[in-house]
Amino acid sequence: MSQESAPPSPRTRVRREPHRGRYDRETLFAILDAGHLCHVAFADEQGIHCIPTACWREGEHLYVHGSNGSRMLKVAAGGAQVCVAITHLDGLVLARSAFNHSMNYRSAVIYGRFEALDHDRKAAALEAFLEQLAPGRSREARPGNAQELAATTVLRLALAEAAAKIRTGGPNDDEEDLGLPVWAGVLPLALRPLEPVVQAAPTGTPEYVRRWNTG
Amino acid sequence: MSQESAPPSPRTRVRREPHRGRYDRETLFAILDAGHLCHVAFADEQGIHCIPTACWREGEHLYVHGSNGSRMLKVAAGGAQVCVAITHLDGLVLARSAFNHSMNYRSAVIYGRFEALDHDRKAAALEAFLEQLAPGRSREARPGNAQELAATTVLRLALAEAAAKIRTGGPNDDEEDLGLPVWAGVLPLALRPLEPVVQAAPTGTPEYVRRWNTG
Repeated sequence: MSQESAPPSPRTRVRREPHRGRYDRETLFAILDAGHLCHVAFADEQGIHCIPTACWREGEHLYVHGSNGSRMLKVAAGGAQVCVAITHLDGLVLARSAFNHSMNYRSAVIYGRFEALDHDRKAAALEAFLEQLAPGRSREARPGNAQELAATTVLRLALAEAAAKIRTGGPNDDEEDLGLPVWAGVLPLALRPLEPVVQAAPTGTPEYVRRWNTG
Repeated sequence: MSQESAPPSPRTRVRREPHRGRYDRETLFAILDAGHLCHVAFADEQGIHCIPTACWREGEHLYVHGSNGSRMLKVAAGGAQVCVAITHLDGLVLARSAFNHSMNYRSAVIYGRFEALDHDRKAAALEAFLEQLAPGRSREARPGNAQELAATTVLRLALAEAAAKIRTGGPNDDEEDLGLPVWAGVLPLALRPLEPVVQAAPTGTPEYVRRWNTG
């Protein structure tokens, strides 16, 4: 993780707690790949919106998809400026002073404009998403037909103007507070896989289901 | 959970999958109270931004706080229109057809303008936040002094124009796909508390730490 690499633009420079800023690809990709959910900020004639949606990364782009009817996708496909954030909350940081309480997190913020994938590239992009979620499943599930693909918008956003911000570790109390008789430490949080819920398993349990919550 | 209650504004009406929309207080409050993290969308002269930050609810308001120097807090305190989203990802929904794959989630979106709390109300609001995170801790940690409070901005956003959207349950395949030889079900996810990391415990382990990951 190189902290030396520079922010790609003024608006991606981390200004609050600048030592938490990370501008290298390895860190950015790790944060994006650890999540399936982003929030997309955009504006239309009704104002500014912040909408959660599924996402995945391939190479130097972040992808989102959905129904052609989605307001967010229609605005984004039209080339509007967007800002997309992905954040993982890793824990509550309890300091000896109320003021120094904090949270551990990993976040990535991307600025830019989405581009729409044409019909021929949509199927491959959606297949890549499914493969990331459940390796092998794209050969099992019924593929999208022409009508389903035509009803689906797939957009991608270049990761050119992006930055990450990370806080890890224990509380940072002021020197004069270190002797206070107060518990100090971290209450960690993590998004964990739970036991799969089976609706039908006509050919047994695939590898990606068996491994889901057993490592 | 009353699905009958109406959206408070056109922009909070859930249009994609409208049956997932929820406009009652009980559902909204439960989603907000289950999370410590929101994403705030706002605009300034550099464009539209989407910034993660800690949040908490008291009554009919959602609160955020941070350093007076925060760009987001400065813009938001100035009365700019914002949109705030809180989303919990509950699982991957694997359908027999690629097209019908989905995610289970609970999300809340709030539109409005933040108002800044004056000096006298800041301490009480921050204390309420700490009490929600760790009941009893506001009597243990050193309270913020005048200088720390003066350096902190606390904002609140009325929950007047808000809506929730929820997906639960298994995959909804098309009738003609139900017989396909494909595993169908849900791979659940949940934000879980992990073992506390102790930096110092000079007076033992408080109740909220003991209970953190043991229920």
